Amino acid sequence: MSAETSAWRGAAASQLVRADELKDAWAVLSVEERLEGLRLLTWSEAEELIRGLSAREQTEILLAASPQEARAWLRLLPPDDVADVVQAAELEERGRLLQLLDDTARHEVVALLAYAEDDAGGLMNPRYARLRPEMSVDEATSYLRRQAREHAGTLHYVYVLDAEQKLLGVITFRDLLMATTDKTVRDIMHTDVVTAAEEMDQEALSQLFAEHDYIAIPVVDRRGVMKGVVTVDDIVDVVQEEATEDIQKIGGTEALDAPYLQVGLAEIVRKRAVWLTVLFLGQLLTATAMSYYEHEIARAVVLALFIPLIISSGGNAGSQASTLVIRAMAVGEVRLRDWWRVMRREIAAGLLLGLLLGAIGLLRVLLWPTREEDYGEHYVLIAWTVSFSVVGVVLWGALAGSMLPFVLRKLGFDPASASAPFVATLVDVTGLVIYFSFATLLLSGTLL
Amino acid sequence: MSAETSAWRGAAASQLVRADELKDAWAVLSVEERLEGLRLLTWSEAEELIRGLSAREQTEILLAASPQEARAWLRLLPPDDVADVVQAAELEERGRLLQLLDDTARHEVVALLAYAEDDAGGLMNPRYARLRPEMSVDEATSYLRRQAREHAGTLHYVYVLDAEQKLLGVITFRDLLMATTDKTVRDIMHTDVVTAAEEMDQEALSQLFAEHDYIAIPVVDRRGVMKGVVTVDDIVDVVQEEATEDIQKIGGTEALDAPYLQVGLAEIVRKRAVWLTVLFLGQLLTATAMSYYEHEIARAVVLALFIPLIISSGGNAGSQASTLVIRAMAVGEVRLRDWWRVMRREIAAGLLLGLLLGAIGLLRVLLWPTREEDYGEHYVLIAWTVSFSVVGVVLWGALAGSMLPFVLRKLGFDPASASAPFVATLVDVTGLVIYFSFATLLLSGTLL
Repeated sequence: MSAETSAWRGAAASQLVRADELKDAWAVLSVEERLEGLRLLTWSEAEELIRGLSAREQTEILLAASPQEARAWLRLLPPDDVADVVQAAELEERGRLLQLLDDTARHEVVALLAYAEDDAGGLMNPRYARLRPEMSVDEATSYLRRQAREHAGTLHYVYVLDAEQKLLGVITFRDLLMATTDKTVRDIMHTDVVTAAEEMDQEALSQLFAEHDYIAIPVVDRRGVMKGVVTVDDIVDVVQEEATEDIQKIGGTEALDAPYLQVGLAEIVRKRAVWLTVLFLGQLLTATAMSYYEHEIARAVVLALFIPLIISSGGNAGSQASTLVIRAMAVGEVRLRDWWRVMRREIAAGLLLGLLLGAIGLLRVLLWPTREEDYGEHYVLIAWTVSFSVVGVVLWGALAGSMLPFVLRKLGFDPASASAPFVATLVDVTGLVIYFSFATLLLSGTLL
Repeated sequence: MSAETSAWRGAAASQLVRADELKDAWAVLSVEERLEGLRLLTWSEAEELIRGLSAREQTEILLAASPQEARAWLRLLPPDDVADVVQAAELEERGRLLQLLDDTARHEVVALLAYAEDDAGGLMNPRYARLRPEMSVDEATSYLRRQAREHAGTLHYVYVLDAEQKLLGVITFRDLLMATTDKTVRDIMHTDVVTAAEEMDQEALSQLFAEHDYIAIPVVDRRGVMKGVVTVDDIVDVVQEEATEDIQKIGGTEALDAPYLQVGLAEIVRKRAVWLTVLFLGQLLTATAMSYYEHEIARAVVLALFIPLIISSGGNAGSQASTLVIRAMAVGEVRLRDWWRVMRREIAAGLLLGLLLGAIGLLRVLLWPTREEDYGEHYVLIAWTVSFSVVGVVLWGALAGSMLPFVLRKLGFDPASASAPFVATLVDVTGLVIYFSFATLLLSGTLL
């Protein structure tokens, strides 16, 4: 354990622990130590710290706490966060957590659990302030005073619903405060409301928030009946999570779904082993491909020297292209139907980049001081072989790397699975074929 | 031009354009076509569309529009967004944009331009609602009614300042609406306000928003004087941008700073060429390294067959480790002082993954049907050489990939520069040395 942890332990012992110190040491503490730390804080400090934790951490704490503590802490959270906490628990412990809730809250949470975790329905809070259109501003104000006492948490907008719970409009508390008392709710409400469908996935939802600068977006079903509210603070977490997943996939790992240092060694090895094994099996094809050229290598060992250079250049160009396209797809800048525009652009970019690297490769061989000793009398031909191969491989890398995310999406897979290592492996095998084809073409009759 | 574009053009011609259609075609339209489209919309449709654009796109539109139009559209934006628009323009055009503002707004925008674009100061809106603590609830309400008429945009919180503009507390419009009239502002204000320092960078700021579920966070200077407000909707954009930059760097490209399809070909080639050239020069070392082993390859050509397999395994393991660590650092899960915990974990993970792949490699050679024809009589020794090398290279890849982001951060560089291709290149050269060292050790006296 680090010096920091023991410093925190010393402070805890002398009852002088501060919320900040606990937070700093948090990552390296066990659940029991965290619980012990929380008990030393004031109620409002503990409340703030608990609210700021991830659902997974909240679940661990609540399951380790006494039923009285767990009940009190669980009440701090809005129903959508409670649903996340329940979802983060093992199946057999979910019942225990639900038993800690009062009847109303349990009912709400169970309803939320029916939605997929990453749909609008799974992110929404089913509690929100509502008004009828025919209410006067005064009636609305005193009605909201009563409603507000029942609801914890901040309310940002008030929704105007008809008798069938269909959404008619929205007003802010500020509108209400600013309105003259002779107006009705209908007079002051905004009717051009941006809404989200229940089954909208969180990526689309985060794009909706990015387009419009709203703090909260109401969720409605197909008939326009209001179901709940998604707030932008949940979306910040969603955007972070989605980016993390994409980055991990691009790096060639399954999404970890938890902080790196908190995932157990067995879990992290398993999540990496799957892709690494698939890629290794793919790489075994390079050994097979190479064995077809064993004869050429035996006659001209000098060809072997440039194998890593050539296949890696293709891999690098490919991983650039695939990450650019994956990200552009994730943020909605590139759609499936844009494939042709992307392809034209990558052909042009790949060719230019290939020519640049090909020229460097050409000069490297032609101008190398010990070129005749290292590469033999035919070093000029070797130089051209390397140079042409680099152009071909870089072009192919850019093309394969940029098109693979489209193919994956078209087939219904996540484009982010076109990871840098995946593209590199794909390009390695074909890169060898390109290289030895140019070699056969240019060196037949001399070296080969 | 696509079918979609011409469909839009047809619609525009017949004056039937709808905001949604324009939005769908947006990416493929020229600035002039966009402007033409905007002029066909109603004022509120145009307003919504313009507000949803990136600063870069807003700037293009405003510079192409007539001064009257530009002036009207610029008034739609809060000062922090105007500052972004001005910053997105070329230096020589900034004056022209600033001239379109009225004196107060220009003064505010010029003050904001003094901050770095990605500091809290550069993201904040200098307009916010303020109150004095000694005001009664009634006074506060009527004062806010007057203030609200002057301020466009949504106000989320009201800030309580003393005579020196120091921040004392915060109240919501809801608090004010719910309060009985015998209270003063001081009675109902919340004093435990989370604030951000002016120079806090946007990554730290987004972590602050992720920890606390606030809609807006006030920015204060060193003396506690209130400077403005950062709202969470700006943070969603920040989080997206930061993730995009990291993903692009991980893929081995410089950050594009604009949507993929909108960056010119020359620009995109330039941004990729820099890293690709650096990596290519690095890869040239593999040719040099290989030439040291030319003698061994000439004696045992079979060794060449496994070169791509071995170096790529190391590259893949390295890019997994580096992306996991880079992302964990970006979201604050891993800090510099955690390097030793990460290193221990990557040694363990690298060893386990290496043993797994090494075992597959061993079996692949030992059980290959044509093993004696392809690999010769000493195929068992070849199998062990490949297997040991894979273990060594994967372990080394995981170690180098995970430690490189720490080294870069320690030296003051962006850890995301430890891109997958960079790590792969680094590991390639050392991978060759590892492979040929094992080969010399195991095959001396037989094949070598």
